[in-house]
Amino acid sequence: MQVADYIINKPDHLQKKILDNIIKLGLDFLSGKIRKNKVLIFKTHQELKDLVSENFPFEGTDIKQLLTQVEDTIVKYSIAQADKNSLAFPDIGNSFIGIAGDILSIFLNQNLITMNRGAPIATFVEIQTIQWLRQLVGYKYNSLKDINNVKLVGGMWTNGGSMSNYIAILIALNVKFPEIKTKGLNALSCKPVIVLVKQIDHYSFITAMQCLGLGSDNIIWCEPKDDYTSDAEAIENELLKLDSNSKPFVLIGVSGNSKTSNLDNLEQLYHVAHKYKLWFHVDACHGGSLLFSNTLKEKVKGIELSDSVSIDPHKGLFLPYPSSYVLIKNPKHLTLFERHQEKFSQTHLYDLGLISPLYGSRGFHSLKLWLLIKHLGTQGLGKLVDLRHETNRILIKALHELHIFVFLTNSNFYRAGFVYCPAKIQEIIKQMDSSKYDKIIPIINYYTELYCSDLYQSGKLVFDLFRLTDFKNCLGIGRHNVYSAMGLTVGHPFIEPKKIDYIIKTTIKTSRKYEASYLKSMKNLNDPNKKYNFTEHNSSPTNW
Amino acid sequence: MQVADYIINKPDHLQKKILDNIIKLGLDFLSGKIRKNKVLIFKTHQELKDLVSENFPFEGTDIKQLLTQVEDTIVKYSIAQADKNSLAFPDIGNSFIGIAGDILSIFLNQNLITMNRGAPIATFVEIQTIQWLRQLVGYKYNSLKDINNVKLVGGMWTNGGSMSNYIAILIALNVKFPEIKTKGLNALSCKPVIVLVKQIDHYSFITAMQCLGLGSDNIIWCEPKDDYTSDAEAIENELLKLDSNSKPFVLIGVSGNSKTSNLDNLEQLYHVAHKYKLWFHVDACHGGSLLFSNTLKEKVKGIELSDSVSIDPHKGLFLPYPSSYVLIKNPKHLTLFERHQEKFSQTHLYDLGLISPLYGSRGFHSLKLWLLIKHLGTQGLGKLVDLRHETNRILIKALHELHIFVFLTNSNFYRAGFVYCPAKIQEIIKQMDSSKYDKIIPIINYYTELYCSDLYQSGKLVFDLFRLTDFKNCLGIGRHNVYSAMGLTVGHPFIEPKKIDYIIKTTIKTSRKYEASYLKSMKNLNDPNKKYNFTEHNSSPTNW
Repeated sequence: MQVADYIINKPDHLQKKILDNIIKLGLDFLSGKIRKNKVLIFKTHQELKDLVSENFPFEGTDIKQLLTQVEDTIVKYSIAQADKNSLAFPDIGNSFIGIAGDILSIFLNQNLITMNRGAPIATFVEIQTIQWLRQLVGYKYNSLKDINNVKLVGGMWTNGGSMSNYIAILIALNVKFPEIKTKGLNALSCKPVIVLVKQIDHYSFITAMQCLGLGSDNIIWCEPKDDYTSDAEAIENELLKLDSNSKPFVLIGVSGNSKTSNLDNLEQLYHVAHKYKLWFHVDACHGGSLLFSNTLKEKVKGIELSDSVSIDPHKGLFLPYPSSYVLIKNPKHLTLFERHQEKFSQTHLYDLGLISPLYGSRGFHSLKLWLLIKHLGTQGLGKLVDLRHETNRILIKALHELHIFVFLTNSNFYRAGFVYCPAKIQEIIKQMDSSKYDKIIPIINYYTELYCSDLYQSGKLVFDLFRLTDFKNCLGIGRHNVYSAMGLTVGHPFIEPKKIDYIIKTTIKTSRKYEASYLKSMKNLNDPNKKYNFTEHNSSPTNW
Repeated sequence: MQVADYIINKPDHLQKKILDNIIKLGLDFLSGKIRKNKVLIFKTHQELKDLVSENFPFEGTDIKQLLTQVEDTIVKYSIAQADKNSLAFPDIGNSFIGIAGDILSIFLNQNLITMNRGAPIATFVEIQTIQWLRQLVGYKYNSLKDINNVKLVGGMWTNGGSMSNYIAILIALNVKFPEIKTKGLNALSCKPVIVLVKQIDHYSFITAMQCLGLGSDNIIWCEPKDDYTSDAEAIENELLKLDSNSKPFVLIGVSGNSKTSNLDNLEQLYHVAHKYKLWFHVDACHGGSLLFSNTLKEKVKGIELSDSVSIDPHKGLFLPYPSSYVLIKNPKHLTLFERHQEKFSQTHLYDLGLISPLYGSRGFHSLKLWLLIKHLGTQGLGKLVDLRHETNRILIKALHELHIFVFLTNSNFYRAGFVYCPAKIQEIIKQMDSSKYDKIIPIINYYTELYCSDLYQSGKLVFDLFRLTDFKNCLGIGRHNVYSAMGLTVGHPFIEPKKIDYIIKTTIKTSRKYEASYLKSMKNLNDPNKKYNFTEHNSSPTNW
């Protein structure tokens, strides 16, 4: 290749051929061919480092050689979240039209900071998409034809849910205390605080409090309900206890927490927010996908009462990263950080960069969601969401009936948490004197981690591994015990019976490997030679 | 298509064929075929809205029909930043290997928040890429093999330069005032302030001040030098004037401002930062690309003295969006917002999400930069950067010699700013009584905007349009006049003589359309019927 060929600028047979091969490589990855039909071909971090570690190259590498290396290392050892045996996260990202749209957006390389010279038609595609999302949520929305200024848009694309949540809290804070923007927080005579619910709080809200200069000490922590949802009454009690200097400004509805995906009762929370004049933000990064389903949208009712909503199509809507949106009910509030105030009063000003704090130049990431909605319609997307829900129900039921696991949560959505605790172990626990409970928790954790890591490293079946409290005392040894739990999220709408069968058989087979030693450990609680600290870093818990 | 085909999960001839067509569509867009070889086929915002405006679709659209629509609307009316006649911004995004890598990353859909279960090998690719960037800048870097914890990484990918700058200021603030994270800004007894240089300040720093709760009133504004760079002496004078309660915490080196791309003297600024114990951040979103060139890296010398650097490969390094990095000299400082403190002391913990404030789940966006560096080597990339620089020199020289424009800046990098002011008009100005100067500024602005918009709407040649002060009095009517200036940025490394010729001819031809009326306006300054307010919203200035 000549240096001139490094840049695409003319029809070029060779370049077209290479890109077609990239498509083939991508499809072979998704189909499983390139990874021996495993979720991943596991390598230790040492092995992975050895594959990648390299001095800063002075000379280049021939493209064919480079792409062979990419296939043999990067593609081969990536994890396939889209595989049906990948049950850790919902982020499957393999919508056909979504991938097609995202590929096209790379070539187009529009800059959504500005309409003229940056993104003439892309700007309107994004504004239309945001209006559809507003309609979906139940906010007032505009026909694109009636939008004559960026001030009326009322939503923005972001890179992910953490960012969307941060933007919402930023806007909430500045709506309640408009002087902060110019004078800073020191100008306030009160102390803005926020109430978060333990266990189901998302880390993004803690980071937001830190980054906004409010400080994580000013988070008021509140207990959750035992079904892993926010307790409106408990929150109100916390609000009543606040000293007069502490000013809560926002209440968060968790519409699908990232641990168990349980969905808050948004209407109850709204009433508290309304009563105390708080901004009501709904984190629907997970739950937002349910809005497409006629039968399931009931689970997020009350979302229309919110002042802002975060939605992550790259989580529940089968799109590749990045795709997240934050919607602000009153579009005016999303203009608080507008740039170029002198231009801002003009009509026919459509530069999205004018209203997006922290986002300047950025690509045409809304093309894929626009295409997804157009290709499937709400009807088709709703059908996919319904199918996923049904797949989830079937899979959890099948796993339940094995009596290998104890489920700590009964998800009303797409995620379950459970520990590895075969029937025989459960029997032993039932007979056990309560004085021994403290000793068995590390053992249950140890074998759950071992079991989960075994599956992960085999590449056969991937669950998440995270910390979960047994609020409902499903293990029968206390309501406040925290376990290393396996997380199962059904992201894929179609897991056919044969695959479910494979999942079941694999879990049983793996259990057989550990049952004997598990039993032995439970019977020899006082064995001083046995330590139950799981130290396998190559498959450490994720716990996000 | 069946509902099952909405998701990619098996080798499928039809899906492969459609994706190959998407590649063809993308290449046809880049080659110019689909847009009649224009930078854009211009449509008014009303026409664009009519193309996109649509009710929320209940039913879906057949994929073939949809892709035909995409070709006829989205692709056809997008603007090609990669076209050689697109001279507004450097963001050309058409690196072949960059596009190939980005396409592959869509299929892989790795989640860089976490290594296990999210991004086994991708995590190490990103860490390696960040180490290369650290080496490039002149920071201490590690061999990937020696990195046994995410604490040693010292850099993060972000979506764009605004975000990278924000993260740098966030870290700087929290290093200087570590109590903010927990206690909030109200715990400080002093007032953190920042010095920004007028005209060349990037909006991201103002937004950062607002979002961090510091307030934009606490920005100390300083005059620039007349070559559009920061004036170290003037900054020091501002620092000396501060009351004892105001605590500056960061000094910003502008290594390529976004208006004229002039590069600060970083060494001088470092000395001020060092003397006053300020964090030294270098915004090298533009200038960072020069580091690859042996001859040009001289222009950013002193960058190695900084505490943090922002670099945007999607600006100066030919990559599609999004690709931006913020590097923090002392990697420990990038762990200030770490999550899961209890896990953080472990070795062999590589989850990048643990150290990236505001970034949770996110894709494998570093693949393209890793591939670019490997494919070209520093040698090849340096060559491209050199070639671009030379192309820039040739083009600006040719435009200079036309005597159609007055250049307000002599860029030492890739961007120039100039007004439309043909020789005859310049002659009139020279003869003019100074009392009339105020009246001619709106006329110069009017014709510059008209001229620039004509070119834009013709789709033949696209310049930026923005506000610029004539510090060097190039127009000869005052040093403080602000003009609507055309911006020229050479993003493309190869603009062959034939193309330069076309650019020159087009500018001359367009000038002929307006010279007569321009002259007439200059001769009838008191014509009460003539208003010089340019109100063509369809090509309004961008001014970022």
